[in-house]
Amino acid sequence: MNAEIVAVGSEMLTPQRVDTNSLYLTAELNNLGVEVVGKYVIGDHLERLASAVRLALSRSEIVILSGGLGPTEDDLTRDAVGLALDRKLIYHPEIADALEQRFARLNRKMAEVNKRQAFLIEGAGILPNDRGTAPGQWLEESGAVLMLLPGPPHELKAMFERQCLPRLARLVPPQVIRTVELRVAGMGESDLDQLIAPVYKKYENPATTILAAAGDIQIHLRARCATQGEADALLVEVAGPIELLLGDRIYSRNGESIEAVVGDLLRKNRATVSVAESCTGGMLGERLTQVPGSSEYFVGGFITYSNEMKIELLGVTPEILAEHGAVSKETAEAMAIGARRRTNSTYALSITGVAGPDGGSEAKPVGTTHIGLAGPTGAEVLKRQFIGDRARIRSFASQMALDLLRRRLAGRG
Amino acid sequence: MNAEIVAVGSEMLTPQRVDTNSLYLTAELNNLGVEVVGKYVIGDHLERLASAVRLALSRSEIVILSGGLGPTEDDLTRDAVGLALDRKLIYHPEIADALEQRFARLNRKMAEVNKRQAFLIEGAGILPNDRGTAPGQWLEESGAVLMLLPGPPHELKAMFERQCLPRLARLVPPQVIRTVELRVAGMGESDLDQLIAPVYKKYENPATTILAAAGDIQIHLRARCATQGEADALLVEVAGPIELLLGDRIYSRNGESIEAVVGDLLRKNRATVSVAESCTGGMLGERLTQVPGSSEYFVGGFITYSNEMKIELLGVTPEILAEHGAVSKETAEAMAIGARRRTNSTYALSITGVAGPDGGSEAKPVGTTHIGLAGPTGAEVLKRQFIGDRARIRSFASQMALDLLRRRLAGRG
Repeated sequence: MNAEIVAVGSEMLTPQRVDTNSLYLTAELNNLGVEVVGKYVIGDHLERLASAVRLALSRSEIVILSGGLGPTEDDLTRDAVGLALDRKLIYHPEIADALEQRFARLNRKMAEVNKRQAFLIEGAGILPNDRGTAPGQWLEESGAVLMLLPGPPHELKAMFERQCLPRLARLVPPQVIRTVELRVAGMGESDLDQLIAPVYKKYENPATTILAAAGDIQIHLRARCATQGEADALLVEVAGPIELLLGDRIYSRNGESIEAVVGDLLRKNRATVSVAESCTGGMLGERLTQVPGSSEYFVGGFITYSNEMKIELLGVTPEILAEHGAVSKETAEAMAIGARRRTNSTYALSITGVAGPDGGSEAKPVGTTHIGLAGPTGAEVLKRQFIGDRARIRSFASQMALDLLRRRLAGRG
Repeated sequence: MNAEIVAVGSEMLTPQRVDTNSLYLTAELNNLGVEVVGKYVIGDHLERLASAVRLALSRSEIVILSGGLGPTEDDLTRDAVGLALDRKLIYHPEIADALEQRFARLNRKMAEVNKRQAFLIEGAGILPNDRGTAPGQWLEESGAVLMLLPGPPHELKAMFERQCLPRLARLVPPQVIRTVELRVAGMGESDLDQLIAPVYKKYENPATTILAAAGDIQIHLRARCATQGEADALLVEVAGPIELLLGDRIYSRNGESIEAVVGDLLRKNRATVSVAESCTGGMLGERLTQVPGSSEYFVGGFITYSNEMKIELLGVTPEILAEHGAVSKETAEAMAIGARRRTNSTYALSITGVAGPDGGSEAKPVGTTHIGLAGPTGAEVLKRQFIGDRARIRSFASQMALDLLRRRLAGRG
């Protein structure tokens, strides 16, 4: 079964607001085995709301609206759904009485406008709201289900959990959803897709989604089956060949970040790491220390932005800098060796590059980056040519440095 | 004129993802005087995408799609818009050639699938993408305009700003929009709002929006008028009293980041800065070096995560660490003085704190942070108790360090 979610309210269409109710609803629906195939945010406008409801109903069995159930004239959800289904709104004096009593308990008098909240769409069941004044509504229409829920998240969640979920569970065929999240470093998105598409394209189930950031790709596989055993078997069937194709470019199978994976490997190896950063200015250290408990394996490091600092703090020789330049294999190597020696760490990573937008040359264009790794068995340097703006080049560089250390620690570097 | 925005991609329909491109696009469209009346998120599904495009086109003059322009088979935006408009897709060998050259410049071979990106919808103009492989498309259809933009935010922003905005500005009836963006460090959002609400609440125009991040608040004032003179006068009328109330807590009046403001002040003072970071692990250096050209004033620094590193790299004495602990006024001061001495910089900033989630105690709970500043006239240390998770505490700490230096440089510290 498929669902669509409509968030109602002009305030949701400003540059500052995102609809978060739909994230909660999506998680709950996914748990039932229901997929969300469309989401809408529509302002307080009768016709536009009605046509969104019609479109959603034309292709999904579950349609959930949030917001627009308040007492004021721009609360149009009731009217819009009535219009879309060609059903009347019917006044229920017992709802008005309950609202009036609610106000009385708070020693307040109900405003006349609140009576608008006592209208139900013909054929709708009421979903009582114990956290606010807006009652929800539950409707069925030729095999589909519509829910009208209040906008405030704490009201919506309580109503959905207590009153909608149990009813939905009876309607939805029982189903299990299992996921695998592979993370891959150091590959371009299209190269990766070309490699693995022949595997996952054969399957509609599990559904495959690929997300790419700077030097970091996530492959989500999501299987929907009647039993957990079936779902797990399907995932093995598809993830297995993908894992074979990608090999050690996969750094985690459970969604874990590369910072955490590197941390685990260091801990397992009883090893420590330090950093020597030029163009990333501290980003690599910042990333390594995002992980709680990283003080177990991260000792510290050096940000050597100027040549003087590379000489004084890391012991890079003036000759190396003069002969090869700050952005060179030789400097990266000397930086890593210097950081390792001066911090007494097991490993040291170094980064030196041209992050741009200025400072590039024909021989060393913006994006040229050398990444060094020094360890007990020696030092090595990777050269990479990254593309993008300053922020992206720095992200790529720190990502590649983390991956270089990961491979060495896993015995593959 | 009205606009609708369609975000394309099944990954945008998971419980973890929100569409943030539409927030950027909404802000830019609002600036032109265009209102966004509907937003959609649709998965990678041809028919569903096409019907969303048809619906949007039936009622709005501007329709923007983001995402689904990649090279893979689930990138369906081109096909869906073609279907919705009943137009063919036409292969443009010159686009394929340009893509091939782009790959060649990176010493890579273009994958065959990338040729899918060389198809334009009949009648569409190409929007070149200098940050990625997916070209955008610009289409006009019976008085309406459609834009197909890439999904990655940095690609979408660059393309929209450089290529779509100028064309849209010619289509949209002229309106003058002027903005002021005040940025404030070191105040809580509710304290700030209580202070300035009596001023801005009196005005519908300019519209006031307040955005808060860790230790950083942005106040946006946006005036929409027939002439620039009117808009400017309105802004002065409202921004003037707000600036008086906030005084030197305002660090910029044109939206400039605190990193850039500090950089400008250092440059003006012909001064340099270094850093000594414990719990932020490099974040302060990373932030200072986000600014292009920061090598003029940022020399480098030390990430001293362990006590040994604080002793060896910065010369903090074992006595200070034993007597006061690593998270103390005395250690912060010694770190700043040590960094300044060892890098020979004009100023040095230090941060030491408990970022959590572990490591807190009754005397020094999670969030306890000391921020040191050493300079030609001496050293000082600020103590702060930040609230939030690890990421938030680290952001707060680096923000306060930048603000401490800003105040000193501006002669107010």
